[in-house]
This record gives sequence, structure tokens and C-alpha cells, in this order.
Amino acid sequence: MNNTLSAAVLLIGDELLSGSIQDKNLTHIAITLEKRGIRICESRIVPDIEEEIVAALNALRSRYDYVFTTGGIGPTHDDITSQSVAKAFGVDNVIQQEVFERMQKYREAKGIEFTEEAMRMAYAPVGAEIIKSERTMIPGYRIDNVFVMAGVPSIMRAMLDAILDRLKTGDAVYSSSVHANVSEGDIAKALGVIQNKYDQVAIGSYPQEPDSTKSNYRVIFIVRGTDRKVINLVCDEILAACDAGGYDAVRGAD
Amino acid sequence: MNNTLSAAVLLIGDELLSGSIQDKNLTHIAITLEKRGIRICESRIVPDIEEEIVAALNALRSRYDYVFTTGGIGPTHDDITSQSVAKAFGVDNVIQQEVFERMQKYREAKGIEFTEEAMRMAYAPVGAEIIKSERTMIPGYRIDNVFVMAGVPSIMRAMLDAILDRLKTGDAVYSSSVHANVSEGDIAKALGVIQNKYDQVAIGSYPQEPDSTKSNYRVIFIVRGTDRKVINLVCDEILAACDAGGYDAVRGAD
Repeated sequence: MNNTLSAAVLLIGDELLSGSIQDKNLTHIAITLEKRGIRICESRIVPDIEEEIVAALNALRSRYDYVFTTGGIGPTHDDITSQSVAKAFGVDNVIQQEVFERMQKYREAKGIEFTEEAMRMAYAPVGAEIIKSERTMIPGYRIDNVFVMAGVPSIMRAMLDAILDRLKTGDAVYSSSVHANVSEGDIAKALGVIQNKYDQVAIGSYPQEPDSTKSNYRVIFIVRGTDRKVINLVCDEILAACDAGGYDAVRGAD
Repeated sequence: MNNTLSAAVLLIGDELLSGSIQDKNLTHIAITLEKRGIRICESRIVPDIEEEIVAALNALRSRYDYVFTTGGIGPTHDDITSQSVAKAFGVDNVIQQEVFERMQKYREAKGIEFTEEAMRMAYAPVGAEIIKSERTMIPGYRIDNVFVMAGVPSIMRAMLDAILDRLKTGDAVYSSSVHANVSEGDIAKALGVIQNKYDQVAIGSYPQEPDSTKSNYRVIFIVRGTDRKVINLVCDEILAACDAGGYDAVRGAD
């Protein structure tokens, strides 16, 4: 798809790799950014190990227009994202005075001790641009083409919202779907012909769980692209192909 | 953690990167394998692009004991996992006679045409060991240290179950949790001391969503390791640290 920007998402945290916690951030980031013409081209999930974060971040930031990280910016021993980002950029991880003072003020007002560990949340790499949000005490930040955000979904969403204005935009990516009662193997040929004819869209074919309660249809075709007219044309051709084969199919409610 | 094996999960599919579909396979694979002493050390999500799959697979298979892939083994134009795996290994992607005959028989019995596209599902790289499962028509397969599975969760699970007997095992990884009403910053120091004392476990600290219905507690600490006695000791020390600070905390129901 032309006129779109590329991005990667780096999800940081042991909990995502051990199965303790199911990531919910990637889909939200992807859906939010596609509307602005920024496509997620790759995602990596790495543990709370500095060298792993550094290696993954350096691989991704040199390759894509933007990188978005989530997780590891809290105050505990396993929160090592900022120091790792600093290392990836070859700079120091330093106190951000404005953040520090905001935290200090908050804790003073509440009568809470400002521990050395809590202060870790006021650190960011030299050169980072702090991105304030009224919805979070601790801000996300940008360094070069990398945006660093929290792992807790509600906080991550607030940070992402605050970041959006700083991003270049491309042609928005739209998608529409067709739900069909067909076995993939029986429609694959026709689908391939349609995909070849319209190379400006991407047609995905997703078989549904046999016991899915979401859909009475066995396969969902999702057509993605930047031109709504072409997407509609392609959906119509898929419907026609299903109809020609005697398979029940409908447009998705999107 | 000593005496464990390492693994990576490669999730293949545009739909996971566009936000159309939320991956549910990684957590299931992680939980299943940790019980057998195989830890997921990294995961990558790549689109349905051959060179991306090849590059990611080659990076991962040289580094970890095992790699598990999901997605892209259906009959449609965007199902290119097997050809990509073959390319990564520098071998041809060829018809697997046994799979072909099984599919042919099934389709003959049902009176369904055996299309060229459906036949694609009978292909696997030269040298692949087909891993049959009574719960799926199309089997997963192994090539060297790489296991190739479907993306649809129920089919993936059947394939994984069939694979388990072929995997070496290490010391099972266990985990227990402590739920606490404390701000992370206020307990981080004590937690760091405990983590330093018991370096054979990994202590994770996960703030909960403010409006989470799952827990009345603000943070969940998860202690992971291969020795249940040590895990219990560590949980007790975390409880004691919370108690000493005047914070309400309980063991999780795990």
C-alpha cells in the first residue's frame, strides 16, 4: 500500500512470554495507527533482559519509520525499559526534572514518601521528549523515531492518544469483510484470481473456529487497502465468486 | 532458570498486525510448554511476506532449542508458511504423499473436488516429519528444531498436543502470585531485596487496571521458578514485606 508509513511494536515483559498476561496493546495500537496511515509491519515480544531489549530495539528502529514500545517503565527491579532504550541509543538515562517535580508535588500532597525506586519513573534517556498527558502521572516519551509507553492498557492508551499529534500521517487504511459458508480450499482459486487483479489491496482469508459464537460463517475474508471504492469492488467480486459456487456469503457489518 | 530448554514462537499473519485478529496462541503455547520445562524466550509476529518469514525463522531457529510457528498453512494465496520454511532451510516444498492421500480419500467420500489450491495443504519442506493428529485433517510437522502449526486456535492446540511427546523436557516452571494493595513505588525497594536474595526465581510486578474486575488488589506479584519450595518462601517474604509496610496482601489462588 503506497503512501503509508511503517512501524513496529516492541512488547516488553516476561509476563507476556510466560503466558501470565495476554497482551492487549498490539491490536489497539494497530487499529489506531492504521486509521492514520501507519501500518504495523512487525512486532516482537522480548523479556525483561537489557541486551534483548537493546538488540530488538536497534533492529526495529533502523528499519521502520516508527517504533512503539510497551511495558517496563514502572519502579520495580524488572522495569528496565528506559535504561535499555538509553543503552540502545548510546546515551545516559537521566532524571527528567519536570517529571520529577510533578511526582514530588503529588507525593508531598498525599504525604507519601518519594522513594528512590519511585524516582526511577522520572528517568528517561538524554534527548527524550517527554509527552505529557493529563490522564497519567508518568508520561510516555519520544526519542528519535521511538515512542516509549506503559504496559498497563489504560495507561498505554492515554499515552498513545497524547503521542498521535506528533506522528506523520499517511493514507488511512480501511478494511471490509465478507463472511462466507465455504471451505477455504473450494474458494481459494477464485480468491487468488481476485487478489491478482487488485494488487493494491490485501485479501486475507480467516477460517473461523467450528464452535465460534461470533459468526455463523466458516470463513471471514478481510480486504484491506487505502481506497474504499476498490475495497468495495473487491468485496463485491468475492461475494459474486461465492454466489457462483453456490456458497452463502454476506458483507460483514463493518 | 537452570535445566530448562529455550524456545521462540513465530506468529505468522497480516491479521495479527492489522488488529483484525487478537492472537490467542502464544499464551497457550507458553503455559503448555513451561509445565514441561521449555520457556518461551522471544516471540515475533510477521506478515504474510516470504522474506520476512524466512529472516525471522532463521534468526530464531539458530538461537533457541525450539521454534514453534503458527499460521499460514491453509490453501489460500496468503498461506505461504510452508514455502517460506522450505526456503529458510534451503530445500524444496513438496507433496507429502500420506497427507495427500488422506485428503483425497476424505474429499472423494464427501464428493468434493480436490482443487489445486486445497492440495497446497499437503505440501511440506523436504525432510519434514509429519505429525498426525486424529483431531485434524491437516497435520502439523517438524523440520529440525522447528514445529509448524495452524493459526486457528483449536487446530493449533490439537497439533501442539500431538507434538508434545517429541519434545525434550526440562525442569517444569511453576509460578505463584501475591495480590497486594500497594503502590509499586512503595514496595519496590523491599521487592528488589527479595529478588536479589533469591536469584533462582523471577519476580514480576504487574499493576492492575484501576477498574479491573479481576482483582480488588492494585498489584499482582508473580514468582516463577523451578523449585516450588523456594517459590513459596519468596511469596511468604513478599507477604511479610507488605505486612511490615501496613499493606493488605494475600496469596493468589494458584
